[in-house]
Amino acid sequence: MQILNSQNADFNQQLTNLLAFETVNDQKLLAAVDDIIAKVRHGGDDTVLALTQKFDNHPASTFGELSIDKSALKHAFDNLSADVKQALELSANRIKTFHQKQIQDSWSFTDELGNTLGQKITPLDKVGIYVPGGLASYPSSVLMNAIPAKVAGVGEIIMVVPAPNGVLNPLVLAAAFLAGVDTVFTIGGAQAVAALAYGTQTIPKVDKITGPGNKYVAAAKRAVFGQVGIDMIAGPSEVLVYAEGAENDRADWLAMDLLSQAEHDSVAQAIFVTTSETLLNQVKEQINKALQTLPKAEIAKQALASRGALILVKNRSEAIAVINQIAPEHLELSVDDPDNMLKDIRHAGAIFMGRFTPEAIGDYCAGANHVLPTSGTARFSSPLGVYDFTKKSSIIHCTKTGSQLLAKTADILATEENLQAHALSARLRTM
Amino acid sequence: MQILNSQNADFNQQLTNLLAFETVNDQKLLAAVDDIIAKVRHGGDDTVLALTQKFDNHPASTFGELSIDKSALKHAFDNLSADVKQALELSANRIKTFHQKQIQDSWSFTDELGNTLGQKITPLDKVGIYVPGGLASYPSSVLMNAIPAKVAGVGEIIMVVPAPNGVLNPLVLAAAFLAGVDTVFTIGGAQAVAALAYGTQTIPKVDKITGPGNKYVAAAKRAVFGQVGIDMIAGPSEVLVYAEGAENDRADWLAMDLLSQAEHDSVAQAIFVTTSETLLNQVKEQINKALQTLPKAEIAKQALASRGALILVKNRSEAIAVINQIAPEHLELSVDDPDNMLKDIRHAGAIFMGRFTPEAIGDYCAGANHVLPTSGTARFSSPLGVYDFTKKSSIIHCTKTGSQLLAKTADILATEENLQAHALSARLRTM
Repeated sequence: MQILNSQNADFNQQLTNLLAFETVNDQKLLAAVDDIIAKVRHGGDDTVLALTQKFDNHPASTFGELSIDKSALKHAFDNLSADVKQALELSANRIKTFHQKQIQDSWSFTDELGNTLGQKITPLDKVGIYVPGGLASYPSSVLMNAIPAKVAGVGEIIMVVPAPNGVLNPLVLAAAFLAGVDTVFTIGGAQAVAALAYGTQTIPKVDKITGPGNKYVAAAKRAVFGQVGIDMIAGPSEVLVYAEGAENDRADWLAMDLLSQAEHDSVAQAIFVTTSETLLNQVKEQINKALQTLPKAEIAKQALASRGALILVKNRSEAIAVINQIAPEHLELSVDDPDNMLKDIRHAGAIFMGRFTPEAIGDYCAGANHVLPTSGTARFSSPLGVYDFTKKSSIIHCTKTGSQLLAKTADILATEENLQAHALSARLRTM
Repeated sequence: MQILNSQNADFNQQLTNLLAFETVNDQKLLAAVDDIIAKVRHGGDDTVLALTQKFDNHPASTFGELSIDKSALKHAFDNLSADVKQALELSANRIKTFHQKQIQDSWSFTDELGNTLGQKITPLDKVGIYVPGGLASYPSSVLMNAIPAKVAGVGEIIMVVPAPNGVLNPLVLAAAFLAGVDTVFTIGGAQAVAALAYGTQTIPKVDKITGPGNKYVAAAKRAVFGQVGIDMIAGPSEVLVYAEGAENDRADWLAMDLLSQAEHDSVAQAIFVTTSETLLNQVKEQINKALQTLPKAEIAKQALASRGALILVKNRSEAIAVINQIAPEHLELSVDDPDNMLKDIRHAGAIFMGRFTPEAIGDYCAGANHVLPTSGTARFSSPLGVYDFTKKSSIIHCTKTGSQLLAKTADILATEENLQAHALSARLRTM
């Protein structure tokens, strides 16, 4: 795990190198994904079945076997152990409560001319939720995608989740039941994205596709963007943990927070930023200690070696500059006074304040969304939210008298823009 | 201009054919754009200058000549005629007033455990605005892009506008001055998008690029999406006008509203939907009459012939179904009681209510944004707005006691997901 020091002359270059990560730019992969999309558009259900048999080694022999009905979802939920059911329900309720605060109302106002202007909010009709299968099949992701859609009032939620070798995580189905998913298909990859974007005989064409996936899924989402909406193109997960070496800092907690990111993926990024060299060394030791027993130590080691870093900075204001440059997906401010730092943090997906807010709590049950902007995209994008499942329409209603002044103005500007039909269309209202 | 009748057996297929429009899927174009982006990333200012000389036939011999300073913007504004200046100011003020209603405040709440959760709104640091040059260089587009960014509190607004043969529309510069644009570069095409996305020696790397452009611009925006945010990938402009043949309907108004869309572009789409065959024929006649004198008649004729339509429906509910299927960018409800229709309209970028609200008023000065979702993307996207120039961060702050229950829940769910470091990270807080 590399150690960076802000006092080094080449610190900026080192930091830039640390953050460099190019998503989908493999021409072969892009061509393969374009090919899959074209095939699915043409072949529909049959093609989706064939590709699912091929890529997922799924034993289904008919397309119908790739669809899971609601009773199977309920069955999975009913069969949960009491403590897991309770944990899932607590999590779902808190996610619902948080996201209900994001509901926006339509509004309108009347101007001094008597014209009414407004903004109408409408939930999307149909949404597709992509849930990764296999090892990274997380019930929490089902809740985080489906509940905001439900809160927004989306008409129909279609979930896709690949089932490699036909095997599904029953907890994912239980979460789908709890979150109110309408339909589940056990398909994945670019073929699932294509099916949702264009529709097949059985799979409804949706208006937007959300949820993370592997590089095929990411490339397919980019390719269908415009045909449907997408949430974002997700990169590897990252955390930036900041602490200052106060007396009550716990190096073991900080180390485990970093490891909880590193265990996700061999390209996940865990960065520790601190003003204290002592704490930096303690955290390093604690990481090494924990790696001796963690089940996913191999993945975490790879992640830490390739993309992890311990960064020593001079003071808090340097730390804030580093944080804003990185624009981390997850940011932990493990200090006594996180509120004092918050006003200066410009870019982060989710900010975990103080020592008792590990990212893991946010991943599952704080209530805020865990689908967050990665790879520095927190500079311009937001956590998944209710706003992703609604859209706005502008409303303009001019009265006869109210349109007079506006039509004159439009006439002048349209004439300047050489758009004569525009000018006449406005002018006719004044005659 | 084709006439469709909802009572025909093949109406649905005809409607589907009418709406079919594939954006950027030309492999040669995509490869050319990828090549330009790679060159600009590598060559910076020099490459941008060379490409601008080549594609725009721009007479600049140094990069510095592609930059326009603020005094030149002010000069352009000061030199406007009084009526144009007044029209531009009225327009800018109304756009500002409308968009100020879109400002969202950060919020937070404390849960029953004492934990604080919230959502922090932050304006983007730097935004690039693309303004088309040449024939389609519209000062109104400058206002519609820059004012929402300004209202959002964006730190720096960088505008790019190509100047073919070195010629610029002074009104575009005046609008940039009025809207508070910080910097203007007279560059365009994929090279301008690449320069904004990756930065050059002189052009700042921005966080988001908004604004419409030609197919090279659209392809470049798609390619850099993820590296920076983009507003949308714009297709040709469209309008859907609806009327029912009431006594006070004016076929000449309706015809001019359709033509104001058709004159934009030979692939613009103007669709008239009506329950009245009489009115349909009157509108058709009025279109043909107006085409005899309109300066842009040739463009409009091409647009109407290739993508325009007059659609006869049986009743209002059929009309609403057609409207929702089309999800038009602009929708005019030219009826006495548009409010009665509004509740059933699910998909439209902007809705122009009643007979005195022609789209042209909305294009310039009603106050709502004229950058709107095209090609049916109103199903899932929104007008350009203040929300496009801000992003959200989630805030989670657990107290020591408040985190106990949540840590236990996270522990259970993380264990189920086989993420041991997540489980331990949470569990450590409870010990």
